[in-house]
Amino acid sequence: MYTLVLLRHGESEWNLQNRFTGWTDVDLTPQGVEQAAKAGELLQEEGLSFDLAHTSVLKRAIRTLWLVLDRMDLMWIPVQRCWRLNERHYGALQGLDKSETAARYGDDQVLKWRRSYDLPPPALDYDDQRHPRFDPRYQGLDPRLLPDAECLRDTVNRFLPYWNDYLAPQILAGKRLIVAAHGNSLRALVKYLDHISDEEILKLNIPTGVPLVYRLKEDLTPIESKYLGDPEEIQAAIAATAGQGRAR
Amino acid sequence: MYTLVLLRHGESEWNLQNRFTGWTDVDLTPQGVEQAAKAGELLQEEGLSFDLAHTSVLKRAIRTLWLVLDRMDLMWIPVQRCWRLNERHYGALQGLDKSETAARYGDDQVLKWRRSYDLPPPALDYDDQRHPRFDPRYQGLDPRLLPDAECLRDTVNRFLPYWNDYLAPQILAGKRLIVAAHGNSLRALVKYLDHISDEEILKLNIPTGVPLVYRLKEDLTPIESKYLGDPEEIQAAIAATAGQGRAR
Repeated sequence: MYTLVLLRHGESEWNLQNRFTGWTDVDLTPQGVEQAAKAGELLQEEGLSFDLAHTSVLKRAIRTLWLVLDRMDLMWIPVQRCWRLNERHYGALQGLDKSETAARYGDDQVLKWRRSYDLPPPALDYDDQRHPRFDPRYQGLDPRLLPDAECLRDTVNRFLPYWNDYLAPQILAGKRLIVAAHGNSLRALVKYLDHISDEEILKLNIPTGVPLVYRLKEDLTPIESKYLGDPEEIQAAIAATAGQGRAR
Repeated sequence: MYTLVLLRHGESEWNLQNRFTGWTDVDLTPQGVEQAAKAGELLQEEGLSFDLAHTSVLKRAIRTLWLVLDRMDLMWIPVQRCWRLNERHYGALQGLDKSETAARYGDDQVLKWRRSYDLPPPALDYDDQRHPRFDPRYQGLDPRLLPDAECLRDTVNRFLPYWNDYLAPQILAGKRLIVAAHGNSLRALVKYLDHISDEEILKLNIPTGVPLVYRLKEDLTPIESKYLGDPEEIQAAIAATAGQGRAR
């Protein structure tokens, strides 16, 4: 039996401001820092440990991982960063206040953009300074890989090679992994592991800063998965995530 | 022309307590944390940036690197950790107060252990719980690689493969590197780059938390090297390092 731990970053500044974040590199709030440290404690109490860690190239996920590793006295384990674990790219919506966007386009349109499996939001212009091609962290990549907007299907598709090339082989080699990432890149993984349909995955909300522990069979099919921590707090966190992106 | 930055970790708890540290995994003091953040600022002001970072598997070096990367907004660059960048292994002296050791064995003997190129300190017993073979971070290595005590020559010899296999090829590939490590693993690198003799290297003291910037020719021979920061503070820091390990 294998163990795999998924962790969505703690609350970020733009989670708090209710803005579309995507690939924008915003930091954790003090509350998010606390959530991450708490996640480390819960993992420690659960008696879990890790051989390798994976994260995105965005600081809210990296800092979450650092806080966990620090708390668990595992700062020395190898950490692999990859853009394939980044949040879904929100295109031209990145930086917009979710409530304002909802007021302008209507709740329904925003909910579709957020929750439609196949409908990408409006794309960034090729010359928009927010386009990933201007960011040094993506300089080593084939420019055609870089998204200017993603629907959830796009996020799933660019995430899966990472599962196939790194995560799955490492788990099968007996490595205990933690993946510190984002709401939608983790959705991609959960969808794949649990065979969740395109429609059902839209209803799945992963709370920030709560470790999700999978036990996997030898063929990597899940035996069980559970969140660590107080069940009521977890339900409240899930509900809070689901409520984002509505006009207030 | 290539640029390479070396950085000794900030002040550690055992630097402060004047104890032999070696491979013991002690953390930074609040002063060490400040030094590391300051180092990040100095590097930023100097207009330097990095593509890749290297560090040991000891948290005082890793935390120093984290603080620098955070300050420079470079948390996303790849970080490679390796035991070959660890501090010199101080054998059975690890954990002993340097002044007490000096009082017991004499200043001269301690200075020899600290500063002789060829004379290792007393070795750890094979069954000593401090032996690296009991530490999970060294489980993947051939046990015969693991030191039970090192003279500086031993440290140089286990460091050099890392230069040859990773640092030199990456620099030649155009990568801008920062190496966050320890007094003696960095001595090993400086000795190699600057062709310093076995005797002279013993007199070279690298201060904690001060970036050392090398400019290298195409064949990796140094054009110049300089510490960043206030020259008087740097001289004071070097003198403080040289004064450790004397009976008080």
